[in-house]
Amino acid sequence: MAFVNGNYGKLKESYLFANIAEKVAAFQAAHPERKIIRMGIGDVTLPLAPVVVDAMAKAVAEMGKKETFRGYGPEQGYGFLHDAVVKYYTSFGVTLDTKEIFISDGAKSDCGNITDIFSDANVILLPDPVYPVYNDTNVMRGRKILFMKGRPENDFLPVPDDSVKADIIYLCSPNNPTGAAYSKEQLEQWVAYAKKNDAIILYDAAYEAFIDEDDATPRSIFTVAGAEDCAIEMCSFSKTAGFTGTRCGYTVVPLGLKRKAENGREMFLNKMWLRRQTTKFNGVPYIVQRGAEAALSPEGLEQCRANIRYYKENCRIMGEILDALGIRYYGGKRSPYIWMQCPNGMKSWDFFDLLLTKFAIVGTPGSGFGTMGEGYFRLTGFGSREDTVEGMERLKEGFDRV
Amino acid sequence: MAFVNGNYGKLKESYLFANIAEKVAAFQAAHPERKIIRMGIGDVTLPLAPVVVDAMAKAVAEMGKKETFRGYGPEQGYGFLHDAVVKYYTSFGVTLDTKEIFISDGAKSDCGNITDIFSDANVILLPDPVYPVYNDTNVMRGRKILFMKGRPENDFLPVPDDSVKADIIYLCSPNNPTGAAYSKEQLEQWVAYAKKNDAIILYDAAYEAFIDEDDATPRSIFTVAGAEDCAIEMCSFSKTAGFTGTRCGYTVVPLGLKRKAENGREMFLNKMWLRRQTTKFNGVPYIVQRGAEAALSPEGLEQCRANIRYYKENCRIMGEILDALGIRYYGGKRSPYIWMQCPNGMKSWDFFDLLLTKFAIVGTPGSGFGTMGEGYFRLTGFGSREDTVEGMERLKEGFDRV
Repeated sequence: MAFVNGNYGKLKESYLFANIAEKVAAFQAAHPERKIIRMGIGDVTLPLAPVVVDAMAKAVAEMGKKETFRGYGPEQGYGFLHDAVVKYYTSFGVTLDTKEIFISDGAKSDCGNITDIFSDANVILLPDPVYPVYNDTNVMRGRKILFMKGRPENDFLPVPDDSVKADIIYLCSPNNPTGAAYSKEQLEQWVAYAKKNDAIILYDAAYEAFIDEDDATPRSIFTVAGAEDCAIEMCSFSKTAGFTGTRCGYTVVPLGLKRKAENGREMFLNKMWLRRQTTKFNGVPYIVQRGAEAALSPEGLEQCRANIRYYKENCRIMGEILDALGIRYYGGKRSPYIWMQCPNGMKSWDFFDLLLTKFAIVGTPGSGFGTMGEGYFRLTGFGSREDTVEGMERLKEGFDRV
Repeated sequence: MAFVNGNYGKLKESYLFANIAEKVAAFQAAHPERKIIRMGIGDVTLPLAPVVVDAMAKAVAEMGKKETFRGYGPEQGYGFLHDAVVKYYTSFGVTLDTKEIFISDGAKSDCGNITDIFSDANVILLPDPVYPVYNDTNVMRGRKILFMKGRPENDFLPVPDDSVKADIIYLCSPNNPTGAAYSKEQLEQWVAYAKKNDAIILYDAAYEAFIDEDDATPRSIFTVAGAEDCAIEMCSFSKTAGFTGTRCGYTVVPLGLKRKAENGREMFLNKMWLRRQTTKFNGVPYIVQRGAEAALSPEGLEQCRANIRYYKENCRIMGEILDALGIRYYGGKRSPYIWMQCPNGMKSWDFFDLLLTKFAIVGTPGSGFGTMGEGYFRLTGFGSREDTVEGMERLKEGFDRV
């Protein structure tokens, strides 16, 4: 008799975005004349950079000719893309071996699949508020999960608590949903904690490209000495180059990183991840890898950075008006996300309803990201300039009536 | 202290293709004048169909314009591709609901990831010889694995043995590596066994497109009545449309398929797989899904079938010469694979060495696919016509000297 994985029964159904969609649809139906401005969107809206489009068009043509057709590629990605990632990391002072880079279809897949190579006996430590994937993928394995609280007092950047014993720690910086980014000193504290506890840090750097080139905020956990002994980093072209619908990411597993199995056998995590990927994955489309390579070329980086500047300018405009209104917020500077305190002690969903009904603005209730998100609200800079300006003007003009 | 998954330590290192590459390289270095013919290749070599290339070129251009750019798509695939798959299945008499179709980056990923939704207490039943992914992905979860023997006596098509109690059964038809394909009656036996034992059949149909349209051999397990209560089917565009480097596949999970968790809670496998995919996957590139849609259009199917006819004609040529030489073989008719008995009772690697050194032909030793593969050898029809003819001519002329 086949049994299913009962841990799936412990997952909470996530209704966050479904609930939002439902409320927005009902409002629009009742008020067809109102123009709704969506500031809750977590997805890029600008098209792919021209050099990326050109590279993919060329790759598509190659696939149509016998002489240049490509079948199965290496599961861990083509050498040309490894080389481009190595060069990219060098630009912020991190030296990688090409064998440490595993090209994948995105950070979400890697975040979920990396759970495979760890024992289910590990205690997981997650920030709250949190990207739900970290939680749900460990619930699916029946693991014990602890939460560390993000609060105004720590700027939503929890640092290690020596009294908490955890084996695997998820960090996301710049953070989704709060937009807050760890400083080098804070990451050093985390590396020290991990080494002391023989723990592993799973570092989600998906938003690193929102950190300016002249900003000292770390873009990689591997800028911290010793991280190569305790950390795995996941990153993505989704936000760096607008690849949310094009799908490419990568995971960095240091060659020297090792831990024991419960039977005492010591194993290299890089070899384990290689085995996982060669067994359960067949690589990213050649066409997409050529696009990703182009995104990391000097011209590609310039074009992608122009898009990021556009989103960040949206955030600046939003922040300026929130400042003028005296609303406290986090993020927005090294992130496409603004994490604002709901005014007058309102709860997240109450503020959502108010914004929608009074101003026809849609955002994301912070409570959807965890207990500590209650009373907060996520706005994003991914909309158009016009909508962002119009939305914030509506808020500015009507806010005293809230 | 973080522990790794000790089950990875139980995996056998797979040196099959690495060993082959090493031997071939050594031979070529010693005999630079010899033209080596590769008949072991498991990868397509003909370029993508023109309509697929056109559709992907159009999609790449769409991604470069703000008005037509696509960000995150549905994790389970776009509706246009679901519709195309539904229509494709209708052509061989299977009616699917679009909600039963999950678009993915390939059958290998799905074969590996589907293990997530099952309990580790299940007993797994695998054919031998076998595609190693079925075995290794279950070893990674520490599951008990039983093997059923493929032999000349059953034409390498094991049928149920009521004395064996298994919970999850992997079937691949047409089979890799043997090329043998189950009849409808045989699949009915498997469905009856699964229903009797409350087991689940994981049916790998990756090679179904090699079955001619007028052939009664099932192209889907769902041509068998009752399969919707006990089977999940995985398929791929890799062999159907030459997508090995383009990456697209799909898994069909019937809406009514349910099983219990060990705590007695009954769960729908379609909902579980949806949860798995929405949590650990972010969908297939829009560009690739447009290519896959084009491959299933009437024109696309005609162009893809022309490529399959080319590979099958290679197999026919190979079979003709093997027949003339009196060598027994399986497959080649509904499959790109020919599974031949090594002559004179030779072992698989001995025959490999002989073919390479005497004839400069490379194939794949059957022992690499399991214990029952010893004494067999896999040849494929994926090479060029010229190479296939030349290789078989070499064999024909020199065979009496073997």
